[in-house]
Amino acid sequence: MKVVTTQSIKTQNVTKEAPIPNLKAGEVLIKVKAIGVNHVDLAKTLNSDDSSDEVLGLEVSGNIVDLNQCTNDFQIGQRVAALLDNSGYAEYVAVSEDRLISLPNNISYEQGAAIPESFLTAYQALFYIGHLRQNASVLIHAGASGVGSAATQLAKNLKNATVFTTSSKAKTTITTENGSDYAIDYSTENFESKIKQLTNQTGVDLILDFIGADYFNQNINTLAVDGQLVLIGNLGGDIVSNVNLLDIMFKRLTVSGTLLSTRSDDYKSQLIFDFTNDCFNLLEEGDLSPQLSQSFKLSEAFEAIKFMKNKQNTGKIILITE
Amino acid sequence: MKVVTTQSIKTQNVTKEAPIPNLKAGEVLIKVKAIGVNHVDLAKTLNSDDSSDEVLGLEVSGNIVDLNQCTNDFQIGQRVAALLDNSGYAEYVAVSEDRLISLPNNISYEQGAAIPESFLTAYQALFYIGHLRQNASVLIHAGASGVGSAATQLAKNLKNATVFTTSSKAKTTITTENGSDYAIDYSTENFESKIKQLTNQTGVDLILDFIGADYFNQNINTLAVDGQLVLIGNLGGDIVSNVNLLDIMFKRLTVSGTLLSTRSDDYKSQLIFDFTNDCFNLLEEGDLSPQLSQSFKLSEAFEAIKFMKNKQNTGKIILITE
Repeated sequence: MKVVTTQSIKTQNVTKEAPIPNLKAGEVLIKVKAIGVNHVDLAKTLNSDDSSDEVLGLEVSGNIVDLNQCTNDFQIGQRVAALLDNSGYAEYVAVSEDRLISLPNNISYEQGAAIPESFLTAYQALFYIGHLRQNASVLIHAGASGVGSAATQLAKNLKNATVFTTSSKAKTTITTENGSDYAIDYSTENFESKIKQLTNQTGVDLILDFIGADYFNQNINTLAVDGQLVLIGNLGGDIVSNVNLLDIMFKRLTVSGTLLSTRSDDYKSQLIFDFTNDCFNLLEEGDLSPQLSQSFKLSEAFEAIKFMKNKQNTGKIILITE
Repeated sequence: MKVVTTQSIKTQNVTKEAPIPNLKAGEVLIKVKAIGVNHVDLAKTLNSDDSSDEVLGLEVSGNIVDLNQCTNDFQIGQRVAALLDNSGYAEYVAVSEDRLISLPNNISYEQGAAIPESFLTAYQALFYIGHLRQNASVLIHAGASGVGSAATQLAKNLKNATVFTTSSKAKTTITTENGSDYAIDYSTENFESKIKQLTNQTGVDLILDFIGADYFNQNINTLAVDGQLVLIGNLGGDIVSNVNLLDIMFKRLTVSGTLLSTRSDDYKSQLIFDFTNDCFNLLEEGDLSPQLSQSFKLSEAFEAIKFMKNKQNTGKIILITE
């Protein structure tokens, strides 16, 4: 079968031959239809020290074509997406049945491949870490990004939250379509003063932040009493100068950092189980809808990565097997 | 009855006459035997802008001498401690029955008056905020302080935790008597390197911190993956320069600030209910033992406050009614 490794994509824009993987107990074999492209893939190809033979790719969709001693109710032929540790840029993928998300028929393979990383990251941040309550308020930065779009849709559909988003002016349409109640254009509006004005100076219960240092103190100021800031990215830097701990104490705030990729297998299994319970019907009814950008063939992975590097995408970039 | 107000203690070291308070529905009248002196009391007497007639005092012990439409099972004559919003420096106190902690007979009134602020603050920080798990590890700064001593005893008795404490060399005996497994002398040992060495570089699951800025980055470095820092004091300053958010994200840390005094009545009631359920038997069996320092008469409140200001105490300073 054809695969793309960190090394192969650096030296030449071609795929490489590799054997179809054997299944361990509890694994299924997926005939891959579509693959999600992630920033981690880009980072690996940019890292000059990394010339490993590891096959890239953290998420795929496709059909189950084989099972080995599986105990869940998956069947040959079933349409699924999967959260992987690696090896998604391939025509076949072997993966634990605990990593599978069943896809309703209305969800295309391209949409399916855009679900695992964005929706599981958003679900984890909102509910496992942020404990978002029914009818609470949440500010989602980078609201038109993959995780930002997923978080907006999840917060509206599962908790009827009041959602504030930040994005560029051009993308406020996307954030509003996702369900954002207040789409803030960060280029012309200060989110802190805007939200204080909109909430009668109360602030928001939860903030999902991908920006990091540049927004940190404004985020603290924008939180309501007992509010929580969940850090899931550092696009605006890592180092904050002058953090006032009294603000954190007096407002009884919580600041949490989280990552999905480094979590244990058990944690990821539970997350996928809970996400599927809460969201399969919402996907089936069209209430959750992954944002898609451009699609490329697997053999064009180099162009896909370049497309991401140039920040040409608004939704998920997808690779399609031929 | 005699009381001490912010104003009366400033102008003269005498008590003031005030009427015995009337009971609202759901309140009990306590004949006060002992009163705990807190830093908040000192702060009010030092604040030159504050010359109010408010009676000082956040915690007392004594006997119930009257009840008005109470629904819990309290009786006239019962020995109790109480968490107050104010008005504890008095011979009688009216307080909601939801603020009462029953005292076993082996606990003296002086010990009883030392329970509410220290033990409820420690209980809240360890369990409500810090979610301390069975057999987990916890670092308690200012381990010989009232809250630090209470936290050490609670963490050992309720969760069999491995407890690390910091204190001055002279107070390591107290921290060890409280149950600390590793009493670190902050004047000669670096707690970060000491704990990394003792935990095989893993770090601790939870830190209770009263120091704030001076310890912040060392605290972050001392936490294990998925660890939590609970901020309950700022003795070492408020402003941290250079906080690295990547450390918080990569180790998936949580930083929480909390205060007891500003919490809602419902929150305090629930806290007292849970504390009593978990701890009455431990108090009765002598497993929890409030640290006492000097006792003064209520009419000597000025000397008691001065004693605290001069940092002469290691345990709780107590006022006794005559």
